[in-house]
Amino acid sequence: MPQDFRVWAPRAARVDLVLQDQGAGTDIAMAGSDDGWWAARVETDDLVRYGFRLDGADDVRPDPRSLRQPDGVHGLSATFDRTAHRWQDSDWTGRQLAGGLIYELHIGTFTAEGTFDAAIGKLDHLVSLGVDFVELLPVNGFNGVHNWGYDGVLWYAVHEAYGGPAGYQRLVDACHQRGLAVIQDVVYNHLGPSGNYLPEYGPYLHEEHANTWGTSVNLDGPGSDTVREYIIDNALMWLRDYHVDGLRLDAVHALVDHRADHLLSEMAQQVKVLSAHVGRPLTLIAESDLNDPRLITSPEAGGYGLDAQWSDDFHHVLHVALTGEKTGYYRDFGSMGDIAKVLRRAFFHDGTYSSFRGRNHGREVEAHTTPASRFVVFAQDHDQIGNRAIGDRLSTQVDADSLALAATLVFTSPFTPMLFMGEEWAASTPWQFFTSHPEPDLGKATAEGRIAEFARMGWDPNEVPDPQDPKTFAASKLNWDESATGHHASVLELYRRLAGLRREYSDLTDPRLGRVLTRHDDDERWLVVERGGLRMVFNFADVSRSVPVGAARVLLATKSGVVLDAGQVFLPARTAVILDAV
Amino acid sequence: MPQDFRVWAPRAARVDLVLQDQGAGTDIAMAGSDDGWWAARVETDDLVRYGFRLDGADDVRPDPRSLRQPDGVHGLSATFDRTAHRWQDSDWTGRQLAGGLIYELHIGTFTAEGTFDAAIGKLDHLVSLGVDFVELLPVNGFNGVHNWGYDGVLWYAVHEAYGGPAGYQRLVDACHQRGLAVIQDVVYNHLGPSGNYLPEYGPYLHEEHANTWGTSVNLDGPGSDTVREYIIDNALMWLRDYHVDGLRLDAVHALVDHRADHLLSEMAQQVKVLSAHVGRPLTLIAESDLNDPRLITSPEAGGYGLDAQWSDDFHHVLHVALTGEKTGYYRDFGSMGDIAKVLRRAFFHDGTYSSFRGRNHGREVEAHTTPASRFVVFAQDHDQIGNRAIGDRLSTQVDADSLALAATLVFTSPFTPMLFMGEEWAASTPWQFFTSHPEPDLGKATAEGRIAEFARMGWDPNEVPDPQDPKTFAASKLNWDESATGHHASVLELYRRLAGLRREYSDLTDPRLGRVLTRHDDDERWLVVERGGLRMVFNFADVSRSVPVGAARVLLATKSGVVLDAGQVFLPARTAVILDAV
Repeated sequence: MPQDFRVWAPRAARVDLVLQDQGAGTDIAMAGSDDGWWAARVETDDLVRYGFRLDGADDVRPDPRSLRQPDGVHGLSATFDRTAHRWQDSDWTGRQLAGGLIYELHIGTFTAEGTFDAAIGKLDHLVSLGVDFVELLPVNGFNGVHNWGYDGVLWYAVHEAYGGPAGYQRLVDACHQRGLAVIQDVVYNHLGPSGNYLPEYGPYLHEEHANTWGTSVNLDGPGSDTVREYIIDNALMWLRDYHVDGLRLDAVHALVDHRADHLLSEMAQQVKVLSAHVGRPLTLIAESDLNDPRLITSPEAGGYGLDAQWSDDFHHVLHVALTGEKTGYYRDFGSMGDIAKVLRRAFFHDGTYSSFRGRNHGREVEAHTTPASRFVVFAQDHDQIGNRAIGDRLSTQVDADSLALAATLVFTSPFTPMLFMGEEWAASTPWQFFTSHPEPDLGKATAEGRIAEFARMGWDPNEVPDPQDPKTFAASKLNWDESATGHHASVLELYRRLAGLRREYSDLTDPRLGRVLTRHDDDERWLVVERGGLRMVFNFADVSRSVPVGAARVLLATKSGVVLDAGQVFLPARTAVILDAV
Repeated sequence: MPQDFRVWAPRAARVDLVLQDQGAGTDIAMAGSDDGWWAARVETDDLVRYGFRLDGADDVRPDPRSLRQPDGVHGLSATFDRTAHRWQDSDWTGRQLAGGLIYELHIGTFTAEGTFDAAIGKLDHLVSLGVDFVELLPVNGFNGVHNWGYDGVLWYAVHEAYGGPAGYQRLVDACHQRGLAVIQDVVYNHLGPSGNYLPEYGPYLHEEHANTWGTSVNLDGPGSDTVREYIIDNALMWLRDYHVDGLRLDAVHALVDHRADHLLSEMAQQVKVLSAHVGRPLTLIAESDLNDPRLITSPEAGGYGLDAQWSDDFHHVLHVALTGEKTGYYRDFGSMGDIAKVLRRAFFHDGTYSSFRGRNHGREVEAHTTPASRFVVFAQDHDQIGNRAIGDRLSTQVDADSLALAATLVFTSPFTPMLFMGEEWAASTPWQFFTSHPEPDLGKATAEGRIAEFARMGWDPNEVPDPQDPKTFAASKLNWDESATGHHASVLELYRRLAGLRREYSDLTDPRLGRVLTRHDDDERWLVVERGGLRMVFNFADVSRSVPVGAARVLLATKSGVVLDAGQVFLPARTAVILDAV
């Protein structure tokens, strides 16, 4: 059967298709054209291994649009028959973000097996928890077997050790069978440290710009039309070919783009076209450190038209209020008033001075017209756990009372809540930084860099886990056996009740930011949040407090000992209560 | 079991609940309060007939929020147990409008039986046609047995002859089982001529304002807070209690509202709150004669935030191009350029002079940011057929070639297409104006008014069907037997192919108005519409035409004899063709 192979390689004067058909390798000269694309049509088996030889080089490179890398990112690419999977989700009409609950998980550590198929076995747990969206950390092709996924170099491939593209199809389909939508985390701001052969093909990188993680992607220089197409086609691939319901766009603040139509705006438009075509809502969520409402403002009002963005400010105010940590980017946060501001205005830094950045930061959100569901909030996520020296979860930093306070704030906020896998039972397992670069030098550099970074902050180098040590990866796997035992089971029950209340009371998912009312006392460290007929009262103090709330009945208290009397609620130390005004 | 009865009757000094329990009537004095609400809690059977006696009057009035009127709108109300129906649609996550196809139908004439249950039997036909949204003409409580539904006086009741609220639940559930969403047509701008007892209860009407159909509803005068609540609660009832997916708001230009937050804007906000609560997209579509983009502009950009509105301009340009009719509101329309303008800018009257109105009309749509899916378009609808003297469909006014032209223009437009029941097979049955007022005087006045109206336009009074004659209703019922026969079957096949192409080619559902390109020749009466890689060519002339289109292949031609040669397409008279540029 004839197959067409195409590759964009404007930097090459000659490109040969290398086919590993029935064991033997064959070089086939490809035909070039002025726009930098090379093409070849060859008779071949349905499924083959292949690669490209650029300018007669000794090494064969994988296809930048490879769907499978059976032998890792340095090996040959493999064709994949997308149509072999018989999708069972023809009645799936998608799921809108507003009102939803997101659950972030990493395939490699979510289960003992670390595969898509094993994850399917846990989906019923997510359904019973009340989850609407399963958000997968990046599954694209990255170096080595174990990795968070942000080191991707082949964005179109699905990581082989997880089960490859066929396993991915099975997982998405299984999610849809259960009414769960799928959000895929994708990284378009940099490429991983090993296996990135894109610069040999064309001007994928912006050599003059670098960000924290590597050289910036070329979004506005010469040749960037095709680079943007490479990114947007990839976004559409997940949503169209793999039936995915949304994308989480990693660190969009690291996208350097000075063109009139920003990449994100162009992507949002293309995704709207696809959404109308497939008849499902498709959701774009940015991770952004910009505190810029433009990202999530509709095009009619001059915005990029993304559906949502993460609000790290929410995490920071909550984290500091619970832990008292004040280092690094936590420095500006901490008071009850800070929490109140974030609940009413989404951003803490909305033009205010950020001492961490040494400058004013952010812009005000238009509270009366911006739906609160456009902000994704969390008490924990992969970064805020995994980027700590020892990858310790909030559950090992604060007591059970504080965890319950945090969960109640997340679920009763006007925003879209997100949980990190295992949070719902206060998992005892850490989630650490792990890599598995096969190259000894890179592995050593990665490990030493990580350990040195934390040594500078005063950590004993022996305490910081070696990211290359397989034990670090193994230690980060969830221990599902504990979820039904002791205090883990109690925490899980609280999460289920909070998710249930959020579904039961429309006041909790009311997207109108302007309707959120707050009262607080920074000295006494309590906070009252009024949403419609509900009153959430939080006592962050280490002592009991009495707070005026008016006539009400208790829907949920995170601790025993709560007393309602004469319009006052008595709260023991570190307690939250949800009240229904009567 | 105790049941609570409540009614808002600020105009009454005394209200008695009249219960018809086990056959006998009982009067129970209700307790009033300062806000005009009256309440009574009584032990009664689960399901009872009841009404209210205002100020000791002889007549008992139905409940303004009655859910059932077993004996018509003048009789007692009946309680209804919504929870008796076991909904089977728990996995239904709704359907977004963008990309969808709407099918408008009237329950009474859709089937021989004229019931919700009979309509269920026809849903598979709609699925095979490619329909996404079933739009029901008003089903609320109206006077008599047969009526279009716009004469409603009890907006919370479901018309008993259709099957009442229980039958309605079954139909909505059956739609969801088949992946069909439901849009309910609702009328909030006036009340029907018989059975409107609302003014006895309170200031529901704005005595100083009248519109075409009756006294305006009080949306901004004293007491209007509760009137607006009455309307918005009704909207929420359909969406929440009956699982409906969207509302079509009748003639919103007749809503007189000078408050800062327009009723439509307030409704859109409340529906967003409900949407987040139920986790489904809920769609609000206005019928509007205002040509005001404000209705469908998002709140962020200063609009009301409705999801869509009907575009009568689209109908008018198409109708005039096909029929040459130039009377009344058709006067300003007719050229190929008019069609082209509507395809590119949605409104024909966007600040231009309307001779029918004797003034400038409309405002420009911001083509680069307004998704075209926010406009619902059609070649025929209940009004454009039923408001003609004899209720004749387009299929009896023009030949089959012209019908195919019309269908092709509707399906390949960038807008959301809507069909009127039977249109898909060029039904031979008319759809006439019918009423069944039991009061002889009202019946006579209605019939005489209708006939006189058309007599003034030159119609022979004997030709205009008598709306009160049961034969007029009977004649308007679809004849399903014909749908599979002769030219009806051919038309149906064309509609299926058009719906299929619209699903297959994302260019056809691309919501970007700014991407629609047109060329036309008003003398030769041809029009070319370019959308992405597709070229639609329409020859409205009565003779053949050759039109330059470049290299292309034919995806669909409405007639044989189309020839592509040397970059030109040869089209016989009244032919449309869809081309794929190559």
